[in-house]
Amino acid sequence: MDSNTVIAAVSIFTAGITIAIGSMGPALGEGRALAQALSAIAQQPDEASTITRTLFVGLAMVESTAIYCFVISMILIFANPFWNYFLQATPK
Amino acid sequence: MDSNTVIAAVSIFTAGITIAIGSMGPALGEGRALAQALSAIAQQPDEASTITRTLFVGLAMVESTAIYCFVISMILIFANPFWNYFLQATPK
Amino acid sequence: MDSNTVIAAVSIFTAGITIAIGSMGPALGEGRALAQALSAIAQQPDEASTITRTLFVGLAMVESTAIYCFVISMILIFANPFWNYFLQATPK
Amino acid sequence: MDSNTVIAAVSIFTAGITIAIGSMGPALGEGRALAQALSAIAQQPDEASTITRTLFVGLAMVESTAIYCFVISMILIFANPFWNYFLQATPK
Amino acid sequence: MDSNTVIAAVSIFTAGITIAIGSMGPALGEGRALAQALSAIAQQPDEASTITRTLFVGLAMVESTAIYCFVISMILIFANPFWNYFLQATPK
Amino acid sequence: MDSNTVIAAVSIFTAGITIAIGSMGPALGEGRALAQALSAIAQQPDEASTITRTLFVGLAMVESTAIYCFVISMILIFANPFWNYFLQATPK
Amino acid sequence: MDSNTVIAAVSIFTAGITIAIGSMGPALGEGRALAQALSAIAQQPDEASTITRTLFVGLAMVESTAIYCFVISMILIFANPFWNYFLQATPK
Amino acid sequence: MDSNTVIAAVSIFTAGITIAIGSMGPALGEGRALAQALSAIAQQPDEASTITRTLFVGLAMVESTAIYCFVISMILIFANPFWNYFLQATPK
Amino acid sequence: MDSNTVIAAVSIFTAGITIAIGSMGPALGEGRALAQALSAIAQQPDEASTITRTLFVGLAMVESTAIYCFVISMILIFANPFWNYFLQATPK
Amino acid sequence: MDSNTVIAAVSIFTAGITIAIGSMGPALGEGRALAQALSAIAQQPDEASTITRTLFVGLAMVESTAIYCFVISMILIFANPFWNYFLQATPK
Amino acid sequence: MDSNTVIAAVSIFTAGITIAIGSMGPALGEGRALAQALSAIAQQPDEASTITRTLFVGLAMVESTAIYCFVISMILIFANPFWNYFLQATPK
Amino acid sequence: MDSNTVIAAVSIFTAGITIAIGSMGPALGEGRALAQALSAIAQQPDEASTITRTLFVGLAMVESTAIYCFVISMILIFANPFWNYFLQATPK
Amino acid sequence: MDSNTVIAAVSIFTAGITIAIGSMGPALGEGRALAQALSAIAQQPDEASTITRTLFVGLAMVESTAIYCFVISMILIFANPFWNYFLQATPK
Amino acid sequence: MDSNTVIAAVSIFTAGITIAIGSMGPALGEGRALAQALSAIAQQPDEASTITRTLFVGLAMVESTAIYCFVISMILIFANPFWNYFLQATPK
Repeated sequence: MDSNTVIAAVSIFTAGITIAIGSMGPALGEGRALAQALSAIAQQPDEASTITRTLFVGLAMVESTAIYCFVISMILIFANPFWNYFLQATPK
Repeated sequence: MDSNTVIAAVSIFTAGITIAIGSMGPALGEGRALAQALSAIAQQPDEASTITRTLFVGLAMVESTAIYCFVISMILIFANPFWNYFLQATPK
Repeated sequence: MDSNTVIAAVSIFTAGITIAIGSMGPALGEGRALAQALSAIAQQPDEASTITRTLFVGLAMVESTAIYCFVISMILIFANPFWNYFLQATPK
Repeated sequence: MDSNTVIAAVSIFTAGITIAIGSMGPALGEGRALAQALSAIAQQPDEASTITRTLFVGLAMVESTAIYCFVISMILIFANPFWNYFLQATPK
Repeated sequence: MDSNTVIAAVSIFTAGITIAIGSMGPALGEGRALAQALSAIAQQPDEASTITRTLFVGLAMVESTAIYCFVISMILIFANPFWNYFLQATPK
Repeated sequence: MDSNTVIAAVSIFTAGITIAIGSMGPALGEGRALAQALSAIAQQPDEASTITRTLFVGLAMVESTAIYCFVISMILIFANPFWNYFLQATPK
Repeated sequence: MDSNTVIAAVSIFTAGITIAIGSMGPALGEGRALAQALSAIAQQPDEASTITRTLFVGLAMVESTAIYCFVISMILIFANPFWNYFLQATPK
Repeated sequence: MDSNTVIAAVSIFTAGITIAIGSMGPALGEGRALAQALSAIAQQPDEASTITRTLFVGLAMVESTAIYCFVISMILIFANPFWNYFLQATPK
Repeated sequence: MDSNTVIAAVSIFTAGITIAIGSMGPALGEGRALAQALSAIAQQPDEASTITRTLFVGLAMVESTAIYCFVISMILIFANPFWNYFLQATPK
Repeated sequence: MDSNTVIAAVSIFTAGITIAIGSMGPALGEGRALAQALSAIAQQPDEASTITRTLFVGLAMVESTAIYCFVISMILIFANPFWNYFLQATPK
Repeated sequence: MDSNTVIAAVSIFTAGITIAIGSMGPALGEGRALAQALSAIAQQPDEASTITRTLFVGLAMVESTAIYCFVISMILIFANPFWNYFLQATPK
Repeated sequence: MDSNTVIAAVSIFTAGITIAIGSMGPALGEGRALAQALSAIAQQPDEASTITRTLFVGLAMVESTAIYCFVISMILIFANPFWNYFLQATPK
Repeated sequence: MDSNTVIAAVSIFTAGITIAIGSMGPALGEGRALAQALSAIAQQPDEASTITRTLFVGLAMVESTAIYCFVISMILIFANPFWNYFLQATPK
Repeated sequence: MDSNTVIAAVSIFTAGITIAIGSMGPALGEGRALAQALSAIAQQPDEASTITRTLFVGLAMVESTAIYCFVISMILIFANPFWNYFLQATPK
């Protein structure tokens, strides 16, 4: 296999596995926080607005770790510097 | 095996495994949040509308991590830039 | 092994493993939500209709992640673009 | 090994492992829901009919993920498009 | 190794591992449901008949996922279409 | 290695591993149900006969998944159709 | 390696691993049931005879899955049909 | 490597791993039962003799699964029928 | 494969797997802290500001471990000293 | 590698791994029983002598499974029948 | 592959995996401590300052283990003594 | 590689891994017993001497399994009978 | 690969993996202790100074196991006796 | 690779992995004991001195298992008898 094939295959596999593994933690963490938020609203309805606001700011923070994975995954597919190097090195 | 075969095989395998692993976290997280929501409604029926609204906004956020995986998976099958490159490079 | 064989073998294996792994998360999540729903109905029978409605809307959302896997699995078997490419490339 | 052997071996292995792994999640999820249903009936006997009805509709939904795996498994054994292709390609 | 040997070896191994893995989930799920049923009977003896009836209908549903595995396992041993194909292809 | 050796080795290994893995789930499930049964008897001694009857019917159902594994295991050792085929094919 | 060596090595390894893995589930399940039995006796001393009787009948049922493994293990060592076949096939 | 070496190496490794894995389940199960027994004695000192008697009979039953592993392990080292066969087959 | 290809492939794979694994811990940890924060607000609404402030300072600290992984991941893609060395060493 | 080296290497590795894995279960089981014993003494100081006596008899039983592993481990190092056979077979 | 390539590849992979694995423990540990801190503040608002101070000193101590990993990771990328040795040994 | 190298390498690796794995169980078990002991002292200060005495006798028993591993580990490094054999067999 | 390359590669990989794995246990253990400390302060504010003092002495003891790993890791990078030996053995 | 390289590489890898794995158990066990100690002090401040004394004696016992690993690790690096043997055997 020539270099281009190796780089492309590794990039494809890594892009997929990165977002796949990287979405488990945030999804579980967000699900837990969301579950507790609903329980808290049921317990203290008068504080629903405070709880909801804190929830969504916090969820955004947890979501950020999934975003990191998505960003890396997208970079590997559409803006991969190693791939660009080998494309330029390939004689046309 | 020539380059096209390698890239196609890796793309197929990665597309499947990405959505397979990537759907576990969100499914478990959503199931947990949903379970707590039902418990909260039973505990505080008067707040059912607030709880339901918060639940679905939150579920959408958790679902987003599954969507990321689905998007990557679809890109790898139908809009794979590496595959397109090798298709153009193949003499016809 | 020629290209067609490799692509077919990878497609078959991935299609199976995708739906196999991808059905664990939703099944466990739905089972948990369903269990809590029954507990909630027993606790607050008067809200049974609200609980049931929320349950099935939520279950549909959890089921969606299993559907993603099923869709990818079916695409890999019956509408696989890589397989179609190699079929056309094979001299008849 | 020729192509037919490879495709047949992969199909057999995938068919078995798909239903094997794919039946764990639904079985555990259904067991949990069923356990809670019995507990709910014991707690609120008057609502037994509502609980039982919700239980079986929900179980059917959880079972659907096992059905997906069974369908894929059966397709791979009895209606495998890749296998059919190679059968036709084999000179008689 | 010729094709017949490969197909036979894969069929044997898959048949065993399918029922082995596939019996864990249902056994654990049924054990859990059964345990809760006994607890429910002890708590509400007057509802023993309702609980027992619901239990056995539910157990049958959980058992169905083990049956799927057993069916696939038996098909692979006694009615394996791939094996039949290679048997006919073998010159006598 | 000739075909007979491969088939025999795979059959032996699969027979052992099938019953080994396949006995874990039922043993754990039965242990759990049994434990709860004893707890239920201690809680409601008057219902001991109902509890014990339900217990043993349920245990038989859980045991059935272990029986499936034992049956497959025995078939692989003493009534293995693939082994019989190769025995007949071996010149004497 | 000749056939006899392969069959003997596989039989030895499988015999050991079968009983090793197969004794974990029953041991844990029996330990759990036994623990609950002692707790139940402490809670309801008057029912000690009923509890003990149910315990030992149940333990025997759980033990049966370990027995299955032990039987397969012993068959593989002392009454292995495949080994006997190869012994007879070996020229003396 | 000749046959004797292979059989000896496999026997040594299997003998060790069998008792190693096979002692985990019984040890954990016995520890759990023992812990509950002490708790039960503290709760109901008057029943100490009944509890202790049931405990030791039960422990013996759990221990039996460890004994199975020990027996297989000892047979593989000191009374291994396969080893004896190859010893007799070795020219002196 | 020449050196450039190896280094590029390893860098791509490591960059993806680093952020994928590295985002699980922080996401789960933040989800847990967030869940408890919402529960604490519901319990003590008057301290909402103190709780929220402590929460976000703490989340930033947990997030820092994810940032470490993201930084390493970005360095490996865009400022990789090893890659730069091999680029300079490659004759143009 | 000659036979002696293989047997020695396998014996060394198995001896170590046997006692390493085999000491986990007993250590955890004993720790659990010991913890409960202390809790029981604190709860019922008057029964300290009965509890302590039962504890040490029970611990000895749990320890026995570790002893099995230690015995096998020692046999493999100092009284290994396979090693002795090969020593005698080696020409001096 | 020459020495430089091997060392560079190993350094890149190790740097990534070190911080990836090494950030899981601290992130989970900090999340747990933070969650308890918020619960403690809600329970005892008057001690908020003492709790917060102890929390951040403790978090710094937990964070130190992540810092160790980050330091090793950075040393491997930017101040790797082995890499420097091989750079000097490479003829220019 | 000659025999001495193989035996030395295996001895080194086994010695390390034996004590590494073998120290996990005792450490966790001792930590659990110690934790409960402190809780028991806080609950029943008057029995501190009995609890402490039972604790340390019990800890010594748990520690014994770690000692077994340490002994095997030390034997493998400093009194390895296989190593001594090969040393004597090496011509000087 | 020559000896220097092997030693350097193994040293780099081991240094990273040692501190990565070695930081998980201490981080989790410290997080648990810290969480309990905050809970204890909230429960008994008057004993805050005693609790804090015990906490930090204890944390230092837990941290010591992480330090062991860090020390080994640093020795492998900067004071590796094996590396020094091979450096001296390399002809200049 | 010559003998010296093999021995050195194995020694380095084993030294690292020994202390890495070996520090997990003690760290978790100590963290648990420490957490309970702080809880015990908060519950019974008058017994703080007894609790603290028992804690540190116990921690030293748990720490001993980590010390075993550290000792083995150090022996493998600085006083490795196998390494010394090969050093003496190497012609200078």
